[in-house]
Amino acid sequence: MSATIKYLLDEEQMPRSWYNIQADLPEPLPPTLHPGTGEPIGPADLEPLFPMALIEQEVSTERYIDIPEPVRDIYRSWRPSPLYRARGLEARLDTPARIYYKYEGVSPAGSHKVNTSVPQAFYSKEAGIKRIATETGAGQWGSAMAYAGALFDLVIKVYMVKVSFNQKPYRRAMMETFGAECVASPSMDTEAGRAILAETPDTTGSLGIAISEAVEDAVGRDDTKYALGSVLNHVLLHQTIIGMESELQMEMADDYPDIIIGCTGGGSNFAGIAFPFIGKQLGGGSKVEVLAIEPRACPTLTRGEYAYDFGDTAHLTPLVKMHTLGSTFVPLGFHAGGLRYHGMAPLVSHLQELGLMKSRAYDQLECFEAAVLFARTEGIIPAPEASHAIKGGIDEALRCKQEGTSRSILINLSGHGHFDMQAYTDYFGGKLKDGIYDEKELAMALSGLPSVG
Amino acid sequence: MSATIKYLLDEEQMPRSWYNIQADLPEPLPPTLHPGTGEPIGPADLEPLFPMALIEQEVSTERYIDIPEPVRDIYRSWRPSPLYRARGLEARLDTPARIYYKYEGVSPAGSHKVNTSVPQAFYSKEAGIKRIATETGAGQWGSAMAYAGALFDLVIKVYMVKVSFNQKPYRRAMMETFGAECVASPSMDTEAGRAILAETPDTTGSLGIAISEAVEDAVGRDDTKYALGSVLNHVLLHQTIIGMESELQMEMADDYPDIIIGCTGGGSNFAGIAFPFIGKQLGGGSKVEVLAIEPRACPTLTRGEYAYDFGDTAHLTPLVKMHTLGSTFVPLGFHAGGLRYHGMAPLVSHLQELGLMKSRAYDQLECFEAAVLFARTEGIIPAPEASHAIKGGIDEALRCKQEGTSRSILINLSGHGHFDMQAYTDYFGGKLKDGIYDEKELAMALSGLPSVG
Repeated sequence: MSATIKYLLDEEQMPRSWYNIQADLPEPLPPTLHPGTGEPIGPADLEPLFPMALIEQEVSTERYIDIPEPVRDIYRSWRPSPLYRARGLEARLDTPARIYYKYEGVSPAGSHKVNTSVPQAFYSKEAGIKRIATETGAGQWGSAMAYAGALFDLVIKVYMVKVSFNQKPYRRAMMETFGAECVASPSMDTEAGRAILAETPDTTGSLGIAISEAVEDAVGRDDTKYALGSVLNHVLLHQTIIGMESELQMEMADDYPDIIIGCTGGGSNFAGIAFPFIGKQLGGGSKVEVLAIEPRACPTLTRGEYAYDFGDTAHLTPLVKMHTLGSTFVPLGFHAGGLRYHGMAPLVSHLQELGLMKSRAYDQLECFEAAVLFARTEGIIPAPEASHAIKGGIDEALRCKQEGTSRSILINLSGHGHFDMQAYTDYFGGKLKDGIYDEKELAMALSGLPSVG
Repeated sequence: MSATIKYLLDEEQMPRSWYNIQADLPEPLPPTLHPGTGEPIGPADLEPLFPMALIEQEVSTERYIDIPEPVRDIYRSWRPSPLYRARGLEARLDTPARIYYKYEGVSPAGSHKVNTSVPQAFYSKEAGIKRIATETGAGQWGSAMAYAGALFDLVIKVYMVKVSFNQKPYRRAMMETFGAECVASPSMDTEAGRAILAETPDTTGSLGIAISEAVEDAVGRDDTKYALGSVLNHVLLHQTIIGMESELQMEMADDYPDIIIGCTGGGSNFAGIAFPFIGKQLGGGSKVEVLAIEPRACPTLTRGEYAYDFGDTAHLTPLVKMHTLGSTFVPLGFHAGGLRYHGMAPLVSHLQELGLMKSRAYDQLECFEAAVLFARTEGIIPAPEASHAIKGGIDEALRCKQEGTSRSILINLSGHGHFDMQAYTDYFGGKLKDGIYDEKELAMALSGLPSVG
């Protein structure tokens, strides 16, 4: 057998700042618009939702933003995270490719999400906020926010997309163990939730709906702000520690990635690993191929329109320009719940438009097949979301084999699948099906895009 | 908030040998006896069960035994494991005690068990064995063996105690993801299983029964050996890497434990952290207090007899001298399935008899309460087994507070609770009860101890 090789940094090598790609964009990001006026919004418009420190990060064009010392202190309980050379997988594939994966599943909540929940909790606490309302898809983000809330003594309320709430009761148990409250979305706790339940009582929910509920909750209470686990610039910023550590670890391996692969739901883990390398390229460094993998059942980057749209279903958020399937699009209840979002991070969308990255879609069955192969060769059971990135990496490695080339492939393994074992059980039991989306529903959702912008 | 401090070793500091406490015992371990003759058994008697390399380790009195390089290569994918100073927990308890915990949950299967499943798979592969039969209680050991089997290309069959099989379907899913076969025990696949099912069809099973099935399976097939996840000397030996790493990490922290605490089911994680320190003491080093924590529902060390007994229910194993509740004792189906064994490792039992360690029993509800406090302050959700050690550590820290003394407490956090969230859900839902055992049943089981020895 071929043993995996681990590259581990010293704590002192952990980055002291996050990397902000907005400093290096060849064209600036299209502005966020007010849905009523169609005019660019200012910081004051976001104040009901976020603490000012995060709003400043959202629009900053500083290249590096310091990580506060209390945040680094907490990061240190699991960071720097390991980067592995997948020798077992390479041997099984019999590929000349060099496959590396950065493993974010070592974190307390089991994914990269804590990289941003911790600073979000920190800045909220600093601003005197007592309570945070948020949503979660697969539950990774809700767990991460619950963990950060426990450490900073904040009350956390999580609106969890109903299909995942039912598929993953143990994610809810994790949130409760950390002291958070978790309800199925749509819920009866908000106007938005009640309206949707009245119209479609059997809905499986969606991230767009859950966002509406959390935003409404936060705006309605003085002691409460909102927190988002992906999509926004400041969230992607916090994730860049993944790529910055990976750069140092690839140096340890005396290698540099030819291709970087991440899965995309809202875009944050993908941005986290890719942006620092894209930034190096924009600054004149080595060129890297960057590949986002999404599910065919929710094909935002590969089938969506690049247009201004709402981030939520009830249209409570500002308008952002992004790849979108339409804010009323409800994706099928497939198992990678973290990839079920109708939109995509504006920064990721912008980079695809600029030709700085590509995207590809896979079905869920082929992703589970890849995940099982990975578990049996590398010993880690991936989250269904991350299995998309692994499938992408395996296909690239097989292409190397076919072409007889040895390329260096860097995959972001954004989380473990310990809370997704029902999905594996269903997969082994032959109960999982592929399913893409209803063409008609997609067309209808896209036809409803706002005309602003 | 007080951030946890992590002490992490370089890979080069990972121990190159295991520590064998048999080299330093003030009195040798009582011999293992043949149940028929009452005479000490020899290596040949164990050959149907284990590869010779492990039999040699079982009886060795060499102080250090080299860790084979291929085993170290695999260990490196998660080892050296971190040791933490529990600053968050200390602050919450407002204790002058210094609380440290060694965290074995970072391993691929989520517990310390892989420390021995990997070498057991390695030596089996070396000996030309194709298939391993084993049992598992909570599923930690079965998952660990499944993982090691995947890496060494061995067929793994796991007999899982029925109560845990039903409580923890996702442990089974994990084993299957790694490629192993897992059945509920008692099963219809063995004589022992069929006999017990005929007599008590509703039995929740026990480790003693599952061991009988796995031993019968292994003895009946030429290509198959048996593997055990605890109790035996060679298993405890493999776990000593935990304590050896901890010694180096306590040095990094410029501290030395006054008290070492581990939970005990079969005794292996406890031995892993404690034996190297007890060995130092026996060699003239600092004295350490050593405390084993067990569930009141299966109180082997605190209520069992120190006597010769069978390791399994069907009486297929040799006789070992240990603390035992009687091989026919079936503990209640409480949630710390890994602590439901009627016996105790002979080495641990022997050390207690020699006065080198103490033991204490707790109820499950107080252990879950401790686990939730730990999760909210340290960010890690402990396995129910490990929560016993945490409860012990918290009580010792509170004793320090009461006495106004600052002692150094080292806890072994043997695994995470990601596959035990039903137990947490039941705890939050008020569905868990304390329950000790049936005094009559215990008396009857003890009255049936074999008269040999």
